This record gives sequence, structure tokens and C-alpha cells, in this order.
Amino acid sequence: MTKNTNVTAEILAIGDELLYGQIIDTNSHWISQELDKIGVKVVQRSTVGDNRESILSAFKAAEKRADIILMTGGLGPTSDDLTKPLLAEYFDCDIALVPDALEAVRTFFEKRGRELTELNRLQAHLPTKCTYVPNEIGTAPGMWFEENGCVWMSMPGVPHEMKKLMQDFVLPKIKEMYLLPVIYHKIIKTVGIGESWLADLIKDWEKQLPAHIRLAYLPSLGQVRLRLTAFGASIETLQDEVELQISRLMPLIEKYVYAFGNETLEEVIGRLLKQSGKKVAFAESCSGGYISHLVTSVPGSSSYFQGGIIPYHNHFKNKLLKVDNETLSQKGAVSEETVIQMSENVRELFEADFGLASSGIAGPGGGWAEKPVGTVWIACASANRTITKKLQLTQDRILNIQLTAVAVLNMLRIEIYGKTE
Amino acid sequence: MTKNTNVTAEILAIGDELLYGQIIDTNSHWISQELDKIGVKVVQRSTVGDNRESILSAFKAAEKRADIILMTGGLGPTSDDLTKPLLAEYFDCDIALVPDALEAVRTFFEKRGRELTELNRLQAHLPTKCTYVPNEIGTAPGMWFEENGCVWMSMPGVPHEMKKLMQDFVLPKIKEMYLLPVIYHKIIKTVGIGESWLADLIKDWEKQLPAHIRLAYLPSLGQVRLRLTAFGASIETLQDEVELQISRLMPLIEKYVYAFGNETLEEVIGRLLKQSGKKVAFAESCSGGYISHLVTSVPGSSSYFQGGIIPYHNHFKNKLLKVDNETLSQKGAVSEETVIQMSENVRELFEADFGLASSGIAGPGGGWAEKPVGTVWIACASANRTITKKLQLTQDRILNIQLTAVAVLNMLRIEIYGKTE
Repeated sequence: MTKNTNVTAEILAIGDELLYGQIIDTNSHWISQELDKIGVKVVQRSTVGDNRESILSAFKAAEKRADIILMTGGLGPTSDDLTKPLLAEYFDCDIALVPDALEAVRTFFEKRGRELTELNRLQAHLPTKCTYVPNEIGTAPGMWFEENGCVWMSMPGVPHEMKKLMQDFVLPKIKEMYLLPVIYHKIIKTVGIGESWLADLIKDWEKQLPAHIRLAYLPSLGQVRLRLTAFGASIETLQDEVELQISRLMPLIEKYVYAFGNETLEEVIGRLLKQSGKKVAFAESCSGGYISHLVTSVPGSSSYFQGGIIPYHNHFKNKLLKVDNETLSQKGAVSEETVIQMSENVRELFEADFGLASSGIAGPGGGWAEKPVGTVWIACASANRTITKKLQLTQDRILNIQLTAVAVLNMLRIEIYGKTE
Repeated sequence: MTKNTNVTAEILAIGDELLYGQIIDTNSHWISQELDKIGVKVVQRSTVGDNRESILSAFKAAEKRADIILMTGGLGPTSDDLTKPLLAEYFDCDIALVPDALEAVRTFFEKRGRELTELNRLQAHLPTKCTYVPNEIGTAPGMWFEENGCVWMSMPGVPHEMKKLMQDFVLPKIKEMYLLPVIYHKIIKTVGIGESWLADLIKDWEKQLPAHIRLAYLPSLGQVRLRLTAFGASIETLQDEVELQISRLMPLIEKYVYAFGNETLEEVIGRLLKQSGKKVAFAESCSGGYISHLVTSVPGSSSYFQGGIIPYHNHFKNKLLKVDNETLSQKGAVSEETVIQMSENVRELFEADFGLASSGIAGPGGGWAEKPVGTVWIACASANRTITKKLQLTQDRILNIQLTAVAVLNMLRIEIYGKTE
């Protein structure tokens, strides 16, 4: 039993179908998350094909880098699956029948009313140096080795089989074998500011961070997540230290922060609306229903989402949302005046506390010098006031739709705060 | 310029956030697919952290295995991003300002009405041995190297920026540099039948395929793509052979096939509506705007999409869509009668040729014995008739929304065919 406070792991996914892009490898991502949670540092992930030389050289490279090597795939009964014979070759041992494994695979087929084929029977033959790890929900057993100063675990590529083996056997076993460091993560989610502006705003704070607290920027569409990772001996101390750092950080970026942790913008809005007992409705032109979709993706949204309307032409902006024909002809559909009327009238139509509207040129067609593609007006109407904003987005239609949604949801978030303060 | 018929590639994803499982690496999978299509064989995919030794040793290992090394990530302006300095170190060159790159990043910010920071300016400094590859939709440029007998391309980790660089520059460049084997792909897109039923339906046809034509099943939400891949010497022969096979296949599955190639269901619908000069509108309850979003994601959809309404409560189904209160109270919102009225009235309200409606229990709450979570009614109204369908979907809210959208769009597709025949 090795005891080690800086335990490293490598994840190895095996299969031609991964390299050729036939199936997505979701296993490696999931294993990464699980190891991160218990303080094992993943140093590399590799994907190789069903090829002897590639697999053997991946074994060799991995054992130089990591204490723990977790591999998925290549365990099927057909001849293109090589993981098992190559593990036996690499550790210089035979492959022999394991009676318990045969019993398990026999039971597996019996339960499903199917007969055991010769190929299935082969799955109960394992390298003699491995510890047999039963797989209750599939036919390929797990194999655990302690060889060449590393631990090795081979698992099937089928996600739910792999996850069960990890949860029932691998993760508990790793926690038992190693004295793992304490790691504390905290995510701070921001919206409405780009990565480099955010970095600029907090650079002095970043410089004074102690060495055992690391900062990462994780940008996505219109949003940046900040991740603080602290390493130490006691979770309480780490939590206190991270909270202290966050208390120094918040005054610098407070207005951009919408959540700590994994909550999405639409979930935050749902929570705030529920808390305040307020309701919302959307009039979406250029966003075409995407904002309503995001909001209604959240379970329980029917308690605060009244509904939405997508008036994709001026005629319907007038007919259904009572936008003045004069405004439409003189100011245009993409104008501050139009989104004001859209937001106020959708609020009234759906008997909501907040009415929000979008109107813009998503592209690729429809732009001109004065209003190029990417020009979007948004508005939020509430009982006391209506606020508006002009966005100048990109040339890309999908991106414009997504960025409009983020801007509208953020506008709503800020208005709800205004109302509940 | 190397000419080689057995060209290999390695994909390298860089970033702690990947290893720690904070974000999913969708890039490597997408790149795998694109390389496979042009006949480049991916031999390994590796993911390493923001760590000097890991990145340098990944460079070294990759150049031994592959002709082409495509890397993503680690190009941000912040100090944790190491790809650029390490490429300069590895190829033993300086980093210097590239005026064109500075001009591009300046224009990028000007268009968005924002000021260039010192950090942004640094993104225009590149290793002197690289060819600068402009990134029109982001701030980190692509970098192309031809060093140590390999070609290397470094791209940002943001998926849409990477994809644009691949499509505009990398893939054409690779096709120009190498004599790639002749590969002919044909995609057949089906909807409304599961993978195993489809496989059963075509198993005799599959068995008679010649060895140089491979079949792959690529299932996604409610749809299965069939991909035929043929290998040979002449593209014309391969095309003829594949077309012959398809002519044998089609009688077996014709009613499920909606496209050949990459056209999406919403694009096919757009094309059919344009061709027939017809217009459409949607009344979405359980799908919450998602169908309208899919339809309006297609450029030019304003010529056939009239609009949509999302009446998320009975009150608005009655007020805005004139569904009888009696129907709502006696049959319920999730009923055939309700979706008939919704579809007919949304068709009238939006002055459309086709009106479609969805109403169901997306979950996780709201189900009961008679109408469990996943029960969905859909309808399509046109001038002559209204058709309906009951779906029994899953326990998962997001999946139910997506599967409802696929079913509604497929119902519309079939109705348009009916109208245009």
C-alpha cells in the first residue's frame, strides 16, 4: 500500500471508433471529474486505436508519468479488441479461465434468457496477474493490476458499466490506498465582461494570491467562469482562505458575478423569480424563441415563465404586440422605440412583472451600412421603468442568437435585483 | 511539399480545465471526424495540462508518431496559457509583433466599440517561425509551422473559432500538400426509426456490401445517420458504386429518409417551404420555443417562418390561442383536442399555411398515472386537414423537449410533401 500525497493519474481510451470520430469519448471527461473531486491529479489523457504498437507504447508512456492508469475500451470479445492480450503481454503473464468470472457471465446471459456463446466464454479468461473485478451490468470484467510501481485498471468502454466499476470499486480502492491531498474548488461565474477585460480588472488581486491557490479563466459564450483551486491539509482552512480571497475579489467584479458553482444564468433567474414571486414573458424577434427555450429548460419554470411570442415580421409586431406601424416604418423594426413597445406590450399581454424583447439583424443577410449584421436592440419593461441596450455582435447568425439571449437574461437578472433590493 | 498517401495526424488538446473535467473537449472529436473525411488517419489524441514539461513532451511524442499535429487551447492572453511561448521555445525562435495580426485584433475590438488592452495587444506577438493565420471571429490567431518534418497548427480552444480556422485554412491546406487516398462518403439521414430497427430492416442489404464500402450507424436524438464510406482509386467509380448501393437501399427505408448529406431537418423544411411558397407558425407549450429556435437558426428563415407563440399556461392557451376553456378543463392541456385547436388557431393567427402545436409533460414534475412524464401530443393543421400524434417519450426534460421538436418537424416535413406532390 503506497501512501502518497501527490497522486497522479493518466486516462487511456482505446478504440479506432474514437480516433475516427465515430463515437464521442464521454468516459475520459467523467473520469477526470471524479478523480479531481478526490484530489488525484490527472496529468494526461490519451486516446489510441486498436493497434498493438500504439497501445503498448501508451502503456509505457503512461507508467512513466502517472501512479494510476485508468483505461477504457478494447475489451469486446471480437478479434479487433486488444486490451486484454496486450496487458498480459506487457506484464508477461498468461491468460487463464477465472471460474468466478465464468459464473458471472453465465448468470448475466441466463437472466436475459440467452445462451452463452464460445466468444462470451472467452470473456472469463483473464491475465493471471490481474485481480478480477466483477462487472454486474455487462459481460467484460474489470481488471486491476499492481505492476511496475503503478496501479492499472482496465474497464469496458460502455459508459454505464465503466461508471459502476469506478464508483463501486476503483474510487473507494484509490481512497484506501493513498493519503490524498485536500483540494477545494470554487467557481465564480461572470457575465457581461470579456476574458481580457476581466483579467485586467483583477490583475493586482491575482498577483497577491498565495502559491497554493490557483486561478483559471474558463470562457464560454458571453461568459467567463473563474475557478479558484486551493491545495492543503485541511478543508476548513482552505475554505476560509478561499473565502477571504473572494471577499477581496468581489468589490472589483461584483456587478458581473451571477453565481458561485455550477448554476446557469437561466437557473439563477429562475431562482430569483421564484424567491420574489415575479413572472416573466418574452417577445423575441431576432432570438427566435431561443431565450424562451433556455428559460423553459429549467425544471419548474412554469411557476414563473408566463409565455412568449415570436413576431418574426413587422405585420405581427403590430397585430399581436401592438407596436405602432408608424414606429415600425419610421424607426424600423431594429430600433430602441420598437423594443420598448415590444417589451411593454408583451409584459401586459402575458400579465407578467417583467417583459423582455429582442429585435436585431442576426444575419447573414439583412444588414446595411447604418444597421450592419449583428446590430441588436434589447429591452426590459417592469412596473416602474423600461430599460434598453444596443448590442453590436458578430457576423455569425447562431452566435448572434446565443449572445442576444445571454444579454437579455443578464438584463433581466440585474432588473430583478433592482426590484428585490 | 510532402506527397504521401498514408498521412497520419495527432490531435493535442491543451488546458488544465480539460484534465480537471471542468469543460468537455468537443474539439478533438470534431477534428477526428473532419480528418477521417479527407483520408487522414488520426493515430493518437492527447490532452495535457497548462504545464511546461507536459506540453513539451507531448510535442516530442507527437512528432515521432504523426505527419500533422493539430493543437487546440492554451492561447488566451493570460499567464496560465503556455502554448505560444512553448512553441517558440520548442522551435528555438523569438516571439515578435506581427503587424497584420495587430491590425486584425485592433479591427476586431473597434467593430465592437471597445478599447484594445495591453493584454490584447500581446495576442499579436507570434513565434517568428510560424505563418500567421488570421482568426476573423476571435482574438487569438492561428499559427502554422512546418518544422522537424511535420506540419503543426495551433488553434484557439473556442470551438467556433477552431472550426472556422480548420474549414477556411487547415483542411484545404492539408488537401493541397498531400496526395490523400480517394475516399467517398455519403450520408443518408433518417428520422422516426430507432437504430436497432433500422439495422434489422437493412441487414440483408448490409451483408451484400462489397468489402471496400463500409457502413456506419451514427445515431443522434431521434435520428440515425447512415454513412457509407468507399475506398478506391477513382472518385467516379466510387460514386457510381455507392449510388448503386443506395438505389438498392432506398426501397427499404424511403419513408424515413429526409436528406442526403449534412442538411438538417430544419434546413430541409426551409428548402421545401421556400420551394412551395408556403409559410409556417408554431404554438409551443412543452417545447417552450425550441422548435421556433431550430427553424429560425436557418439563414433566410424569415421568408417562411411567420412566428410563434408559447402559451405556457391554460389561461394563455385560451386568451391568445382561443382554445376552449371547456376543452382545457375537461380534456386537459395535454390532449388531442387541445393541440388540434392550438395548431388550427396558430395557423389562423399568423396567417400561415401550416400551423403546428405541441403540448406535453416535459418533467420532471407534473406527471400522473394517466399522463406520465413524457406524454406529449402534437398536431399539424393545414388548409384541408389537421393531423395529430401522441408521443410517449422519456423521463428527461431536455430530451423530451428535443424529441418533441424532432417529431413536430418531421410531421411538418411529411405534410409539406403531401401538399407539394
